[in-house]
Amino acid sequence: MPCFCDITVSLDGYVAGPAPTLEHPLGEGGEQLHEWAYGLKAFREAHGGEGGEDNADSRLIEANIARTGAVVMGRRMFSGGEGPWADDPNPDGWWGDEPPFRVPVFVLTHHVREPLVKGETTFTFVNGFDAAFELARAAAGDRGVHVAGGAEAIQQALAAGALDELQLHVAPLFLGGGTRLFADGAQAKVELTGVVSSPAVAHLTYSVNARA
Amino acid sequence: MPCFCDITVSLDGYVAGPAPTLEHPLGEGGEQLHEWAYGLKAFREAHGGEGGEDNADSRLIEANIARTGAVVMGRRMFSGGEGPWADDPNPDGWWGDEPPFRVPVFVLTHHVREPLVKGETTFTFVNGFDAAFELARAAAGDRGVHVAGGAEAIQQALAAGALDELQLHVAPLFLGGGTRLFADGAQAKVELTGVVSSPAVAHLTYSVNARA
Repeated sequence: MPCFCDITVSLDGYVAGPAPTLEHPLGEGGEQLHEWAYGLKAFREAHGGEGGEDNADSRLIEANIARTGAVVMGRRMFSGGEGPWADDPNPDGWWGDEPPFRVPVFVLTHHVREPLVKGETTFTFVNGFDAAFELARAAAGDRGVHVAGGAEAIQQALAAGALDELQLHVAPLFLGGGTRLFADGAQAKVELTGVVSSPAVAHLTYSVNARA
Repeated sequence: MPCFCDITVSLDGYVAGPAPTLEHPLGEGGEQLHEWAYGLKAFREAHGGEGGEDNADSRLIEANIARTGAVVMGRRMFSGGEGPWADDPNPDGWWGDEPPFRVPVFVLTHHVREPLVKGETTFTFVNGFDAAFELARAAAGDRGVHVAGGAEAIQQALAAGALDELQLHVAPLFLGGGTRLFADGAQAKVELTGVVSSPAVAHLTYSVNARA
């Protein structure tokens, strides 16, 4: 099953705004990025809520959840911290007691520690993208591996030739600065395989032939 | 009539690759950006050719040409040069004896010179975006002003609140470096108004409310 990434990016190419803090991990203006998702049925269900709109955007999230057997994410996406865990103000991460993943999550970190169980989600801490990816593939069974972010983890997945599919949710806003999804030096061969849009967001899906 | 920009951008956000030269003004790999257009009927007609595919991509180019009454472009898009014209190895520009514009073109430069007539196109050289934009508006009559590029001219148009519409042709490729369409600091309020795609390219159209 494919390894895929799906991530929301501003029109000017950022996945987080400037000056992220523990209170505003997505930086200035960064929370606007995900506004397209908050009101959707699939998003609410994943986060333990009810109701919400059931439209093409929601079905796309639903399909991504259904095909995800394991997740790989960067340390900053997990907790916002870096360095030794003793110095991390948020060592349990900010995904709460019932994280929306409900599959094994592999967190990239140079500071390996014991796994952390939160609700139906187990976070395992792994040093290096390749090792995390192998563990995630094994854990995912016949479902796919979702490289959830942030930008650095996705860049590593691309550089490793691990990604089969890249799905960008292009949000109609400018952040004017922050963390770019693609740094200089990103390289991959891609083909546009699908476009879905609503007034709130354009979803562009690419197959990736990075191994070629 | 609206002031619009339409420009092709790589998936990683560049409008030209690294190390542009006179022979390769779009930098390393940059010519791939426009491959989606070369075989299209509307593109061929504009460049004095015949035949070509008449599909949704072609009709979009055709519509852009039809609504363009005047063009604003940066000096580098005109000739690749900078500084005094006496030092420009390409002072007549690289648009040939019959440029595809066939409407008044206003070239942004600090080095004003006499207008240059090439076929049905007159290039007028103007110091400063605001001045060029006013002249272009007057020249366009009841048609629109097309801010053709490059990145810097589009950033100036956005910053000046001059753009009403932003149309990006997202080409399915990575350039890995070069000239970014949006530098840090770009700001505008936008709404997604249209999405058209083919296997070769995704066209995203936004209305811009930069003046708001």
